Amino acid sequence: MSSEFGKLLRVSVFGQSHGKAIGVNIDGLPAGEAIDMDALNAFLDRRKPGKSRLSTQRREADAPIFLSGIEKGVTCGSPLCAMIENSDQHSSDYSELADNPRPSHADYTAWVKWGGQADMRGGGHFSGRLTAPLCIAGGIAKQILARRGVYVGAHLSSVGTENDSAFPLRPTAVLFDEVAAKPFPVLDDRAGERMQALILEARQNLDSVGGVIECAAVGIPAGLGDPMFDGIENRLAAALFGIPAVKGVEFGLGFGSARLHGSENNDPFTVENGQIVTETNRAGGILGGITTGMPITLRVAIKPTPSISQAQRTVSLSAKEPAELVIRGRHDPCIAHRAVPVVEAVTATVLLDLLLEGHHGTF
Amino acid sequence: MSSEFGKLLRVSVFGQSHGKAIGVNIDGLPAGEAIDMDALNAFLDRRKPGKSRLSTQRREADAPIFLSGIEKGVTCGSPLCAMIENSDQHSSDYSELADNPRPSHADYTAWVKWGGQADMRGGGHFSGRLTAPLCIAGGIAKQILARRGVYVGAHLSSVGTENDSAFPLRPTAVLFDEVAAKPFPVLDDRAGERMQALILEARQNLDSVGGVIECAAVGIPAGLGDPMFDGIENRLAAALFGIPAVKGVEFGLGFGSARLHGSENNDPFTVENGQIVTETNRAGGILGGITTGMPITLRVAIKPTPSISQAQRTVSLSAKEPAELVIRGRHDPCIAHRAVPVVEAVTATVLLDLLLEGHHGTF
Amino acid sequence: MSSEFGKLLRVSVFGQSHGKAIGVNIDGLPAGEAIDMDALNAFLDRRKPGKSRLSTQRREADAPIFLSGIEKGVTCGSPLCAMIENSDQHSSDYSELADNPRPSHADYTAWVKWGGQADMRGGGHFSGRLTAPLCIAGGIAKQILARRGVYVGAHLSSVGTENDSAFPLRPTAVLFDEVAAKPFPVLDDRAGERMQALILEARQNLDSVGGVIECAAVGIPAGLGDPMFDGIENRLAAALFGIPAVKGVEFGLGFGSARLHGSENNDPFTVENGQIVTETNRAGGILGGITTGMPITLRVAIKPTPSISQAQRTVSLSAKEPAELVIRGRHDPCIAHRAVPVVEAVTATVLLDLLLEGHHGTF
Amino acid sequence: MSSEFGKLLRVSVFGQSHGKAIGVNIDGLPAGEAIDMDALNAFLDRRKPGKSRLSTQRREADAPIFLSGIEKGVTCGSPLCAMIENSDQHSSDYSELADNPRPSHADYTAWVKWGGQADMRGGGHFSGRLTAPLCIAGGIAKQILARRGVYVGAHLSSVGTENDSAFPLRPTAVLFDEVAAKPFPVLDDRAGERMQALILEARQNLDSVGGVIECAAVGIPAGLGDPMFDGIENRLAAALFGIPAVKGVEFGLGFGSARLHGSENNDPFTVENGQIVTETNRAGGILGGITTGMPITLRVAIKPTPSISQAQRTVSLSAKEPAELVIRGRHDPCIAHRAVPVVEAVTATVLLDLLLEGHHGTF
Repeated sequence: MSSEFGKLLRVSVFGQSHGKAIGVNIDGLPAGEAIDMDALNAFLDRRKPGKSRLSTQRREADAPIFLSGIEKGVTCGSPLCAMIENSDQHSSDYSELADNPRPSHADYTAWVKWGGQADMRGGGHFSGRLTAPLCIAGGIAKQILARRGVYVGAHLSSVGTENDSAFPLRPTAVLFDEVAAKPFPVLDDRAGERMQALILEARQNLDSVGGVIECAAVGIPAGLGDPMFDGIENRLAAALFGIPAVKGVEFGLGFGSARLHGSENNDPFTVENGQIVTETNRAGGILGGITTGMPITLRVAIKPTPSISQAQRTVSLSAKEPAELVIRGRHDPCIAHRAVPVVEAVTATVLLDLLLEGHHGTF
Repeated sequence: MSSEFGKLLRVSVFGQSHGKAIGVNIDGLPAGEAIDMDALNAFLDRRKPGKSRLSTQRREADAPIFLSGIEKGVTCGSPLCAMIENSDQHSSDYSELADNPRPSHADYTAWVKWGGQADMRGGGHFSGRLTAPLCIAGGIAKQILARRGVYVGAHLSSVGTENDSAFPLRPTAVLFDEVAAKPFPVLDDRAGERMQALILEARQNLDSVGGVIECAAVGIPAGLGDPMFDGIENRLAAALFGIPAVKGVEFGLGFGSARLHGSENNDPFTVENGQIVTETNRAGGILGGITTGMPITLRVAIKPTPSISQAQRTVSLSAKEPAELVIRGRHDPCIAHRAVPVVEAVTATVLLDLLLEGHHGTF
Repeated sequence: MSSEFGKLLRVSVFGQSHGKAIGVNIDGLPAGEAIDMDALNAFLDRRKPGKSRLSTQRREADAPIFLSGIEKGVTCGSPLCAMIENSDQHSSDYSELADNPRPSHADYTAWVKWGGQADMRGGGHFSGRLTAPLCIAGGIAKQILARRGVYVGAHLSSVGTENDSAFPLRPTAVLFDEVAAKPFPVLDDRAGERMQALILEARQNLDSVGGVIECAAVGIPAGLGDPMFDGIENRLAAALFGIPAVKGVEFGLGFGSARLHGSENNDPFTVENGQIVTETNRAGGILGGITTGMPITLRVAIKPTPSISQAQRTVSLSAKEPAELVIRGRHDPCIAHRAVPVVEAVTATVLLDLLLEGHHGTF
Repeated sequence: MSSEFGKLLRVSVFGQSHGKAIGVNIDGLPAGEAIDMDALNAFLDRRKPGKSRLSTQRREADAPIFLSGIEKGVTCGSPLCAMIENSDQHSSDYSELADNPRPSHADYTAWVKWGGQADMRGGGHFSGRLTAPLCIAGGIAKQILARRGVYVGAHLSSVGTENDSAFPLRPTAVLFDEVAAKPFPVLDDRAGERMQALILEARQNLDSVGGVIECAAVGIPAGLGDPMFDGIENRLAAALFGIPAVKGVEFGLGFGSARLHGSENNDPFTVENGQIVTETNRAGGILGGITTGMPITLRVAIKPTPSISQAQRTVSLSAKEPAELVIRGRHDPCIAHRAVPVVEAVTATVLLDLLLEGHHGTF
């Protein structure tokens, strides 16, 4: 088992970048949920490449075809399988990669694991393109959650050394929509301009640059999640590390809290409108793996795109000797901004899974 | 399911801080593995409190009693259950907590989830004391791994704003042993002194302080792990977030790589003694969720102990109104240094689980 | 993973017959459930040996010691671990078995799997004694279910060629209690006498005899279970085959329905007191893996005790040559009647697990 | 999670009988396995309807389209997704079923679970048609197993009251092939003629009839499987009950052994060609959930097709009152013979999954 996650809601991703199709099978969706296809396609559009010089010039139609699980626009209870046919592939661009693994890409590890049989054209099953099926699952989850007052949103927290401001203590669905509607998903547009300049500069230098995404979920009731190894953090982290290029996940202040004193990091409890809340939310809405009812906040580190156009040192797998590699093809100088909806998608999917089992223990 | 992790090697932790016993059940251990009890106890000693003013003055015997799975010092194949009886408890210290949840502790979320029935004396099932059973599992895993040339070690990377140096590119079992033998687990003892000063200062201020732990594993073959959601990172992160107080997990450069360019972050491949290796290891030994054969490196953020002796704002659960709380009892001003062997333990357990299924796909 | 089952309610069994203790860890029990210890012990007594000449003369105290998960007689939400210390062991009885595997017992397969290290004294982890921890879990589950109007009962359906009558279309909790209170758990006591005569005859012939157990559950709402591989039948069968000596599981008419025509096997729907029910229940309350609301009925085949006192042909594992074996020690000439509460226990545990996730899909 | 099974080899089935497509996603297949498409299609043909008056006159093309996981006829390591497009559907035949659930079919339970949204045209996700994707998975598994000397075969053991002879003590791949090549899959063709007469008689009477399938696997090494809940029997049974219409599963003599004495049921060990074997194989090659190295044998009870053309009593779901139903459309008077390759397929898939983790414990 590998390309699957979830407990009551099982999401299985399939496909290789240059195979016949990529897609997702979702087992355990509640029945009777209307899916707004326009909204879903708008969500999928947010991760699409080819929209500006900030990303690859590849164009992907990415129109999902639903094979099962949905009838007349409504989920019917049985597994929902959707596929996206692959079309715009330039496999020849990758022909020389077979023997020369790209540094910091999965070419080498896939070769070790699966041998010469691994279909690594365009990154194969490890391609960022596989995040499109994740967004189908997540886009559906977001709609089901929104119907119950749970909203998930994200923005680009940093690119390289340029930082956006952070979400406020209580972000709203309106704020999430505003960011989602922007061509560049930041809170502070001037910070966004500096980030874009960094990305274009990297592109010009035949280089790439990494970034951090902040994601939040509001409307989650207190008491969700289980202690130790099945808490909100465990399950979100396990799924988020499934997004290609993610190298770190933190909740609330995360690594920042490790630099603080308890008196600076603790969130005092108080009562607001008859509800127990915390005055601050350095815990990211999670204590002991269980939700406090405050917004869940998390941050995800995205490494710089490993595919850069500069000459790089690699090896010949067949000759077991050093080699030089110049990667051709079209690549994103930064993938962090395109990964923003992907982080939302995975977060929403995990939260829906948790909510589906939410009332166990008090049935 | 909550306090369990693992796929072929299932680790289930049980117990409350002030209940009759805490313990662990390990299902799936290979048979015929001799367990060196002295080495295991020495490992358990590393997380024990009561050794200096740097930690709580509670004394725990922590002598594990093996109920099953081991005969004449050798694993016999059936599940290994071990318990540690609880003895040195001062439950009265916690009597007033019942109605006043400690800020940034799990008291409140446990109460929401389990109601007044939750046994939260001493933190209940959420107590740091539950890391002792984790260390039993991890101590056993470390012995089994070492027999196959796989070594896991860790050190305190930072306390508050004070930093230790980082592991070298290729840490060795000897280095791991050296750090483990130190009273304060750092590479650079002068940095360690500054860290200890910070901890004592926090204690004096009735405060606490957080820290970061760096862990590494060497000897892991290339090709371990599966793509997307069942990779090394997914499974390590899911388990590591089960350690109380962990708020962030990163691999290789982690959040640091998000600030870099691809040309700075990529690890060039080369050939060394006939082996394909990388010249640098910013990826932490993992590409596409699969091991490269380079050392696995990860860092874990530990928040400052939430139990501090300063007066704090909280609420009365029964009255639903603000209240003030002064926590009595004995608490660690920092738990990061005691968590070092716990991070090793969890890492070793996950790696053993992965190795047990390692050859699938090429059976 | 091996000695565990369940999805939201995880039950892990540990221990060897002649080790220090056997026990069970239950993760996922709802909090706030009072456990009636007298009722639990009465339930455990039903599987105990040593009560008559019908079973082994071994006496087991079988008093469970609760290590965690229960405070003041009420579940507290965290994992419940209970152990039973082993005391009345005659390991010397088994001394010669080490090299001569008992036919149709797990001695040989354990030796292949775990090598000479396998602790097979008294059957080790494969011993029928391991059903005592299952009964702790099941006895607790039965209490929690009964509180919600769900009742599970069983009787001995046959011993050898002697048959009891079948449960009526709608068995009641009262009927279940009546059978449970009998020294020999049958509906028709005259059939029970014939069965007992068969067992005593087998004993006299240094032989043993098998049997079938019928189990029913009433009060289960319609709509529980999932299609295909996660239905009621899949999950019950997977768990029931975990009871030592079970070689067959069927639901409703089971193998009997394979001999019928559709017109004889179909259950017509009708309306009774405003409820949709079936006039007959050949389906055992399950269609498409999902409950109909009618009683769940199942039957479990228990093979004759493999330990018989006649001389048997076996091999010497060390010499790899034929050998003769005469098993000494005290053995049950039939285990089917003692397995009746075990089948109830496992059925109740699985049903509780299913009910805990019952409302998913319509949350 | 529902329509999935497997641990290291995960098989997820999707689709509704009259939706756009049905299919299967297989995660965890070893890489580098050549798939013989002609052999696979020949295997799929064995379960196809429309070949004679013994089955429905529906014709299904059933040509699988591979979306991922296979390149140039060889598995590439990433998940293999295959779909079969639906074409020959007469949905109007089922129009009146919406309100009148067919007795002993899943119409009613799907309606309870999923509400009016359930897509039950043609049985929806519960249709026997969903066994085609299972056969894709199983046909692939059979090829991979055969390459390693493991062979799986099955025959129709009985239809109604007519019985075939049983597999010999050691069935061979040649015997399996012979049965598979027959138009009616029995060992004794005269018994097969009597069975076919029974089926045609049922058809003439607007009725249907059930049957039993015997399946065997040879070449499995001793020591496969885990004790208690993760043994060969648990996992095979859990998966086999996922085949629509299965109501019973037994291993070796199964329910038959419950009628025997230990002296009749025990399998004596002996040595043959230097190998430890059993003289008989009443245990079906499994002791304590672990393989003995002898052939695995099991039997599966298939209930009579619930769709019969006689008038039947049912209810109106909307009016909650009795109703009469006459099912139109084309239905199999018996599905047991068509289920023979399906039982092989599921058995092969589970065994491959077990073999993939086979060597854990001795890594």
